[in-house]
Amino acid sequence: MRITIVGVGLIGGSIGLAARERLGADVTGWDPNPAALDTACARGALDRGAASLEEAVNAAEVVFAAAPVGQLPATVERVLAAMPADCVVTDVGSTKRSVVAAIDDPRFVGGHPLAGAETAGVEHARGDLFQDAVWYLTPTHATTGTGFERLHRLLRGLGALPTTIDAATHDTMLAAVSHLPHAIANVMVAQAARALEEESEQLPATGPSFRDATRVAGANSAIWTDIYLANRDALIERIDDATRRLTEFRRLLEDGDASAVTAWNDGARDDRRRLLEAQLAGGPLHELRASVPNEPGVIARLALELGRAGVNITDMALYPAPNQAEGVVALWIAGDEPAERALALIEQQGFPVAEA
Amino acid sequence: MRITIVGVGLIGGSIGLAARERLGADVTGWDPNPAALDTACARGALDRGAASLEEAVNAAEVVFAAAPVGQLPATVERVLAAMPADCVVTDVGSTKRSVVAAIDDPRFVGGHPLAGAETAGVEHARGDLFQDAVWYLTPTHATTGTGFERLHRLLRGLGALPTTIDAATHDTMLAAVSHLPHAIANVMVAQAARALEEESEQLPATGPSFRDATRVAGANSAIWTDIYLANRDALIERIDDATRRLTEFRRLLEDGDASAVTAWNDGARDDRRRLLEAQLAGGPLHELRASVPNEPGVIARLALELGRAGVNITDMALYPAPNQAEGVVALWIAGDEPAERALALIEQQGFPVAEA
Repeated sequence: MRITIVGVGLIGGSIGLAARERLGADVTGWDPNPAALDTACARGALDRGAASLEEAVNAAEVVFAAAPVGQLPATVERVLAAMPADCVVTDVGSTKRSVVAAIDDPRFVGGHPLAGAETAGVEHARGDLFQDAVWYLTPTHATTGTGFERLHRLLRGLGALPTTIDAATHDTMLAAVSHLPHAIANVMVAQAARALEEESEQLPATGPSFRDATRVAGANSAIWTDIYLANRDALIERIDDATRRLTEFRRLLEDGDASAVTAWNDGARDDRRRLLEAQLAGGPLHELRASVPNEPGVIARLALELGRAGVNITDMALYPAPNQAEGVVALWIAGDEPAERALALIEQQGFPVAEA
Repeated sequence: MRITIVGVGLIGGSIGLAARERLGADVTGWDPNPAALDTACARGALDRGAASLEEAVNAAEVVFAAAPVGQLPATVERVLAAMPADCVVTDVGSTKRSVVAAIDDPRFVGGHPLAGAETAGVEHARGDLFQDAVWYLTPTHATTGTGFERLHRLLRGLGALPTTIDAATHDTMLAAVSHLPHAIANVMVAQAARALEEESEQLPATGPSFRDATRVAGANSAIWTDIYLANRDALIERIDDATRRLTEFRRLLEDGDASAVTAWNDGARDDRRRLLEAQLAGGPLHELRASVPNEPGVIARLALELGRAGVNITDMALYPAPNQAEGVVALWIAGDEPAERALALIEQQGFPVAEA
């Protein structure tokens, strides 16, 4: 498979390493910074660097656009204009609505791997960065089934767990579980630093709970300013919600109401347990086969419906019929109950389906 | 050394294990729950369990009161009434003003080890729990030097780093670096759980940054309700400060001001670096010897002054003169610059001092 990576930082470089090591893919790269391109080649993340974005993508089957969120729409447009007709392009941005709204092309699928660390740059790239990492995909009604399936299979090959979701839900969720926690980590180090200054005390040993809670404070501004701003409406909603909850707790403290404080704390304990339990989904693997018309958007819509119902597609494969008018899609679903739900949902969509 | 532990949970049990394993101490315990006492004996944290608090402390040299914060004043009073005249009693509560204000006795020193985890109960006790852990001590003007020095030396023997601080500063600092982070972890899991419900989405894989930020959410209410309420004024101040900072960030988002968002984020990066760097204090060890009058509070006041100036006492020893009217205190200080500062400060207090 011929893969092109536009932007060889931590994520782009790790895609290159994983694709070459695990899949024997042929990987071309381009980066506005020639030094990054050289490092990526030297580290074995690329087979070659190209002289321009256009040259890099002109024979690709899959393109990853790994630019900062603010530059994604323009970057993806340039890729689409230069890449072959049957190629699929995806991005790896941490917010999805802005790029999905800007690009109206059946060959584009929004994406976002939940991987990466505070460190950035191809020097830190690793071939196992995506092992067992959720990789969100946000196809639209226009996305082609072949492109989506090719990308989905490739991500599985990189070790990732592709999960389909719509862009707006993605951004709301990420505001809640990533962007707000990052902003609050910033607030926490700032208030701690000032509180200690005011006490004119030596800074204390802060202990593991504080270090854990603030590990992501001051994360790379080159990435995070874009993320905060691209998702600012969803993030503002989360800030308002958090402020409301904090104010509520403040009132319980003022009232000195021990049983209410306990109830509030126990509620958080339950919430945390539910969030953790939700990570542990799984079960026996089922293979479902459905017949679908060969129309743009059908596969993507199906994946989206399943994702919305909480069914994760562990793996998928598309077998087009010779007439190209229809095909069979095979879906692997983990767990008895999710597989049953998937079967019912696919039937509801009007497609013949059965367990293989 | 004869040590008594009142309340054998995670902290009390770990003190017992460390004192027996490391110092060969003779350890007696008492707990309102007889089953906890049996487990503590079976695990080797105690030499024996006593039938009552009074029986447990009647021959002790050092007593640790390891009860929930709300019960500490009453527990320490009972210990003081029953223990020998030359015994010293300390507590391990996470807030210090309430117990220090309630107890006016030269044989009491407030304490707080920065150790322990979400797990509670003697089943989880470990002899290395305090290894390299900061253990705050809050002596008052009344505290005897002999008691304070005996406790300080014992804590060093358990592997801990005793650090002297006044109770009010302790509580402000802990509100900033522990109590607020705990409260915010609760808020974070609550808003995430609700946000995901509203989207009627399956809960997502939340990623390591969210798990880190919320590890302490819903921590044991039997401990935390007391902590929140005992420190509520300091915590309310921290909540107000955090809310103000969050609201400030919200305004930057509304304005869409990229350079202001970047400046805000870079400021947090600096704050985080300073907080981390402050953990790495150290340097060559200096031994200072000062002559001090044998009066209640002298040693404690000295330790407090040094702590306030950011000088940490790595170790200390007290050598009373035969006439008991004065003595020499030896202080070990890590780092050239802190040792110099300590020398100057001790001189300022009017005590003859020199490097040994």
